[in-house]
Amino acid sequence: MSKLRVAVLGAKGRIGSEAVRAVEAADDMELVAALGRGDKLETLAESGVQVVVELTTPASVMGNLDFCIRHGIHAVVGTTGWSDERLAQLNTWLSGSPGTGVLIAPNFSIGAVLTMKFAEQAARYFESVEVVELHHPNKADAPSGTATRTAQLIAEARRKAGCAPQPDATVTALDGARGADVDGVPVHAIRLRGLLAHQEVLLGGEGETLTIRHDSLHHSSFMPGILLGTRRVVTTPGLTFGLEHFLDLN
Amino acid sequence: MSKLRVAVLGAKGRIGSEAVRAVEAADDMELVAALGRGDKLETLAESGVQVVVELTTPASVMGNLDFCIRHGIHAVVGTTGWSDERLAQLNTWLSGSPGTGVLIAPNFSIGAVLTMKFAEQAARYFESVEVVELHHPNKADAPSGTATRTAQLIAEARRKAGCAPQPDATVTALDGARGADVDGVPVHAIRLRGLLAHQEVLLGGEGETLTIRHDSLHHSSFMPGILLGTRRVVTTPGLTFGLEHFLDLN
Amino acid sequence: MSKLRVAVLGAKGRIGSEAVRAVEAADDMELVAALGRGDKLETLAESGVQVVVELTTPASVMGNLDFCIRHGIHAVVGTTGWSDERLAQLNTWLSGSPGTGVLIAPNFSIGAVLTMKFAEQAARYFESVEVVELHHPNKADAPSGTATRTAQLIAEARRKAGCAPQPDATVTALDGARGADVDGVPVHAIRLRGLLAHQEVLLGGEGETLTIRHDSLHHSSFMPGILLGTRRVVTTPGLTFGLEHFLDLN
Amino acid sequence: MSKLRVAVLGAKGRIGSEAVRAVEAADDMELVAALGRGDKLETLAESGVQVVVELTTPASVMGNLDFCIRHGIHAVVGTTGWSDERLAQLNTWLSGSPGTGVLIAPNFSIGAVLTMKFAEQAARYFESVEVVELHHPNKADAPSGTATRTAQLIAEARRKAGCAPQPDATVTALDGARGADVDGVPVHAIRLRGLLAHQEVLLGGEGETLTIRHDSLHHSSFMPGILLGTRRVVTTPGLTFGLEHFLDLN
Repeated sequence: MSKLRVAVLGAKGRIGSEAVRAVEAADDMELVAALGRGDKLETLAESGVQVVVELTTPASVMGNLDFCIRHGIHAVVGTTGWSDERLAQLNTWLSGSPGTGVLIAPNFSIGAVLTMKFAEQAARYFESVEVVELHHPNKADAPSGTATRTAQLIAEARRKAGCAPQPDATVTALDGARGADVDGVPVHAIRLRGLLAHQEVLLGGEGETLTIRHDSLHHSSFMPGILLGTRRVVTTPGLTFGLEHFLDLN
Repeated sequence: MSKLRVAVLGAKGRIGSEAVRAVEAADDMELVAALGRGDKLETLAESGVQVVVELTTPASVMGNLDFCIRHGIHAVVGTTGWSDERLAQLNTWLSGSPGTGVLIAPNFSIGAVLTMKFAEQAARYFESVEVVELHHPNKADAPSGTATRTAQLIAEARRKAGCAPQPDATVTALDGARGADVDGVPVHAIRLRGLLAHQEVLLGGEGETLTIRHDSLHHSSFMPGILLGTRRVVTTPGLTFGLEHFLDLN
Repeated sequence: MSKLRVAVLGAKGRIGSEAVRAVEAADDMELVAALGRGDKLETLAESGVQVVVELTTPASVMGNLDFCIRHGIHAVVGTTGWSDERLAQLNTWLSGSPGTGVLIAPNFSIGAVLTMKFAEQAARYFESVEVVELHHPNKADAPSGTATRTAQLIAEARRKAGCAPQPDATVTALDGARGADVDGVPVHAIRLRGLLAHQEVLLGGEGETLTIRHDSLHHSSFMPGILLGTRRVVTTPGLTFGLEHFLDLN
Repeated sequence: MSKLRVAVLGAKGRIGSEAVRAVEAADDMELVAALGRGDKLETLAESGVQVVVELTTPASVMGNLDFCIRHGIHAVVGTTGWSDERLAQLNTWLSGSPGTGVLIAPNFSIGAVLTMKFAEQAARYFESVEVVELHHPNKADAPSGTATRTAQLIAEARRKAGCAPQPDATVTALDGARGADVDGVPVHAIRLRGLLAHQEVLLGGEGETLTIRHDSLHHSSFMPGILLGTRRVVTTPGLTFGLEHFLDLN
């Protein structure tokens, strides 16, 4: 079987350089180009690349994707900052290149994606759901974007299923004790030296609890998701938003 | 809206008496009969019952279901001991009463069912998977039936997806340190005073881990699953085996 | 060896009736009296009782202890509501009966007492410490009294050791996300159906974390502490406040 | 206040180079020498060093400590391989230099040391105790040395306190399900990609459990213990074995 020809854009960055190594180590892939800032996209066309892994910046990503789509190169995109306008633009470009696939993923960690998916699926079946995220103390925002997103997915799933509000008999509380309220889901943020990035979803019903916990210890955790996306984007034309759509959850 | 008319068979048992209370407490149900050992099934027919919750014994269950199916009464069954012969018999009976539904569930705990389902779905996406079950020290078997079943589902999912064997560089080990081997999945059983029934599935990949934990604190945890089954069996003709088929996991 | 002669006051209460059974089941103890509301204390004197387990109410406890101390009966006290005045009164009474011991314990759960003790001991050796308590959703206060007390003990230990304030780079936060501030220690309260009473102390330093977790599943967890107190109070004259003083932690 | 003058031996090694940085970063210390393989010890004498951090090899450590003790230099030693003979030799040397202190620590992680200490202290107060250790799958031995040592400390504490054997009604078990038996304490070893080094001690009694968990994410976790040892060894003449003796646990 011939190998998938892959290029990495943003190859000098923290995640990009890791992606270069991951593609090189994959038995079924060949790294045909690794471009950093200032390198010309034109070299891509000559390389016979089939999939581009796009890990640059919001300032560069649209130009890069325009080029890829025009040349029928599939793309797996980790760069952030997606507005509705940008997504609409992408869809327009893709409509002119019907065989080309683009995967944009806000999070390439399979563990994080499954945590959110499972939380969303389970949320309607339990009376109570809370989210706890735990990070190193250098983090500037609380709660984390992932925790907020998880809570929103939970709230939306419960709303759709017509769940009652969560039971909570609290009468007297210290300020902040019950966490932040994200669409009715309490979210608690812990900051502890020695931690990296962790999240726990606690679901409780009559006589039982279900806990889903994700521990992220290194950004190398993005690599399996990037490789999985790279393998599947070639047979998934059009725009896909979120790695969860590439996971078989049956 | 008219209420669902429900009867409980085995109503004097530990789970049965709990089911009686749960049906009585449900806004959308009416308890029309609660039969114990020796009570006549004929009273059921007169009660206008729509769904029977069957929580008796392997010796009684076939007779009860024969009666129910002949009278077009749906059934939600927690009684155990299902052989292929019994299931085939049930299917034969049901083919003669095409509108009637029977749900048999080895486990009515939604948390336990979701733990198994999520473990099965996630198993192929991680290099390593192990199962830890924790129970009170009066338990006679190790590992628990649920843990063994969970490990088998994991192994089957990995086999189908063509996963490599789990990495394990162990060269010297004390006997038993690495747990029991269930189809290639290590399973560890902990027995501790103060515990009831708990299970943890640990999944590990490059730079991250995902943990799914179920804590069962009381057999009241079966009630939400019994009620859910009762509501859905009326619109699900034929035989359904496993509560997971009644959960919407999209 | 002759058995320890024990009486239970408040023997009809939830904890008291459990204590009656625990004393009866203990090989080295004999239950000589079990008094409920309205029963006369005088019967105690005739019973030859050596230790009274006092589990009544703040309204009764002082009268009961006055009687015990005057008769040289040791006491193990679970009743709450201790002011400095009451403790001073007790000490005065005890000074007149120098061989008599009284143990007052706000918490008889050995697990809870050890959690607090270990948290206090470890607190000075880690940069970060946070407390998470998890309870059933019918609880009226947040955080729990135990969690608040634990945080205060941690804060006091860190102050004594001259620890720096905890690192926390949070710049933008949702209200409540970082928990309640108890003397500089963040405390988070989770309310979940299916839970009973649980507490976790998380300590983090460079490259490592230490977690101490207590799960209380039933008030029978008070019994080992009550029995331990009963055995040791007979050789510990005077007033002891807190079960931790009866634990050998070397 | 004048700074403590510290030298690192084995300064080029993985832990040694980290120790160099940690000493340089400490406000109350001055790094006066950092010696690698082949560097002459004599330079130490001239440096006015007060404490040597010894992180070399079993082949070098005795020569290094002989030199230090003869020159009245205190030592904090992480090098392993200590026999009774070697310790006796050290004591002989130290008896000739009564003001000099040597700390040998098999483990400089404060979290690991506290986990063992707390497990040892709590062990006698619970009916059941089990140890679970979790490591990356490249580890060659199972269970880990730390887990085995922890189980031995627990077993010894229970023996001294006259505890009954642990309750366990297991009648039928798969091979290995109940873990390895270390002096009567079950020990379970989990190997999972994505993990580093983790250990959990589970203690269970009537109605409650206590869990002590240590997560080690990086060998930088040894640094606070090395610095603490360095500060305290100057006022602790003679041989101290184990960092726990330098922790204030009251």
